[in-house]
Amino acid sequence: MIRFFVAPQDVGADSIKLNSEDFEHIRSLRLAPDELFIVCDGENNDYTCSLGERNERFVVRIVEQKKVLNEPLITSTIYAAYSKGDRLDYTVQKAVELGVYNVILYESKRCVSVPNNIPKRIERLQRIAKEAAKQCGRGIIPKVTDIGKLNDAVVDSIGQSDLTLFCYEDEEKQHIKDLLEFHFSQENKDNKIMSVSIITGPEGGFEPSEAELAKSKGTHIVSLGKRVLRSETAPIVALTALMYHTDNL
Amino acid sequence: MIRFFVAPQDVGADSIKLNSEDFEHIRSLRLAPDELFIVCDGENNDYTCSLGERNERFVVRIVEQKKVLNEPLITSTIYAAYSKGDRLDYTVQKAVELGVYNVILYESKRCVSVPNNIPKRIERLQRIAKEAAKQCGRGIIPKVTDIGKLNDAVVDSIGQSDLTLFCYEDEEKQHIKDLLEFHFSQENKDNKIMSVSIITGPEGGFEPSEAELAKSKGTHIVSLGKRVLRSETAPIVALTALMYHTDNL
Repeated sequence: MIRFFVAPQDVGADSIKLNSEDFEHIRSLRLAPDELFIVCDGENNDYTCSLGERNERFVVRIVEQKKVLNEPLITSTIYAAYSKGDRLDYTVQKAVELGVYNVILYESKRCVSVPNNIPKRIERLQRIAKEAAKQCGRGIIPKVTDIGKLNDAVVDSIGQSDLTLFCYEDEEKQHIKDLLEFHFSQENKDNKIMSVSIITGPEGGFEPSEAELAKSKGTHIVSLGKRVLRSETAPIVALTALMYHTDNL
Repeated sequence: MIRFFVAPQDVGADSIKLNSEDFEHIRSLRLAPDELFIVCDGENNDYTCSLGERNERFVVRIVEQKKVLNEPLITSTIYAAYSKGDRLDYTVQKAVELGVYNVILYESKRCVSVPNNIPKRIERLQRIAKEAAKQCGRGIIPKVTDIGKLNDAVVDSIGQSDLTLFCYEDEEKQHIKDLLEFHFSQENKDNKIMSVSIITGPEGGFEPSEAELAKSKGTHIVSLGKRVLRSETAPIVALTALMYHTDNL
C-alpha cells in the first residue's frame, strides 16, 4: 500500500492534513474515495486512510490506526565519511532500508571530496532518507546530519551508544562477528546493549593515527573481512551484520 | 598495491604477458623499474611483479608468487532477476566485493525491464565484475551469465548447490537466520554445505505462483526481514548474511 509521512501535529481525531505535494501525488493516482493508503506520523503510528467523499483540500480521512512493527529493536547510527559522487546517496538509501536510526556525516583526513555546501548535501540526503523510509515501510524517518571532524564523530558515538564499531581495513585480528558475539553474549547480558554506532571511512580509508585515536577514546576496531570493501559498501555490510546478529533481519 | 588479472596461459616461468590495455595502464602510472604491482591469474595465484629493466612490450617480470587467501570458503551464486537502470550494476559490484562466486541473471513474471540485447548487458556486467575483483583483491573474476526464465534458475540452483535460498518478500515465518542456523548446525554437520545459491526477484517482487514453484522444486523460502528491500539491496543483504554466518566476513 502506498505510504506517506506527516508530522504528528498534522494528525487529528479522525482526519490528517497532508502537505500539498503528497496530496497532489494522491490525487494524481486517481484513487476511488474508499481506496486505502497509509499515512505515518514518523513516530511509529500508521494511519490507514482514504480520500473520503468530501475531498476537502489536503485532508484525508482516518479509517484505522495501528502501531508500526517494522522498526528494529536495536538503535543503530552510521557515522560515514564524506565521499565522492553519489556514494553517500547509496549509503543513506540502503541504511534506511536496513533499519538505521540515523546517519551522521563527518570529515576525515583522507576525504577527497567534502562538499562546499554541506547543508545542501544534507538536505539532499535527508530527502533520499525520506523516500527510502516511505518505500520500505519504516515507522520513522531516519535523520541525516553533519558533525564536523572524525574526532567529533568518535566522541559523539561514545556518548550516544552502548557500543561503537570502528571499521578499519588494516585490522586483521578482530572480526566484526567476534566482537558482536562477545558483546551480545549471555555472559554480557547484564550490560544489555540497546544502541550501536558504526564508523566507516572514506575511499582512501583511515590513517593509522585515526584508528589509534578512535581506539584510545573507547571504540572497538573491527575488520569486515579480507576483501577491501568500497566506502559505500562497508557501512551497509556492517549494518547488515548487526541486524542479522541481533535478529532484526 | 595495484592489481591486474591475466589468463593462466599468459603466465610464464619468470614473466607474464599483459594485454595492451593493462600494460598501457601500468605505463601511464610511470612506475620505476623496480616498483611492485600484483598480477593475478584468476585461479587464486598472485604474482608480485615489476616492469624490470628491459621494458619488453607487454611483458612484466615476476618477483614473487603466492596463493590468494581472500576467497571465502563457501561457494555462493546469486540468481538475480533483470531490473531497471543500473540496479544490476550495483548488485554485481557489491556481490563481487562480498565474495560471490558467480552471478546468474534470469527473467521472472514481474520483470519490467529485460534488455533487448542480453549479451551486451552481460558483457557490461562482466566488466563491472572484473573491475570490482581488481579493486577488492579477489583471486578469481566471478562470472556473470544469463540463464533464461525463473524456472531455469531454480532448476540450475538445485542442481549446482547444496542449499538454495529463495528470498520472498511475502514470507513472514522463516527468516534467513533460522534457515542458516539449521543448515549449518552441529546436528547437520554430516551434510556439510559447501555451496549456497541465493535467488532474488525484480522490483515488483515474485508472484505467489513463482514462490510455490520454487518451493516445489526444493528451494527454501526465506524472509529478509520486515522492511521491504529494493531489488538491488536484497541479494547483497542475503549474501552478507551468508558470509557473516559462515565466518567469511
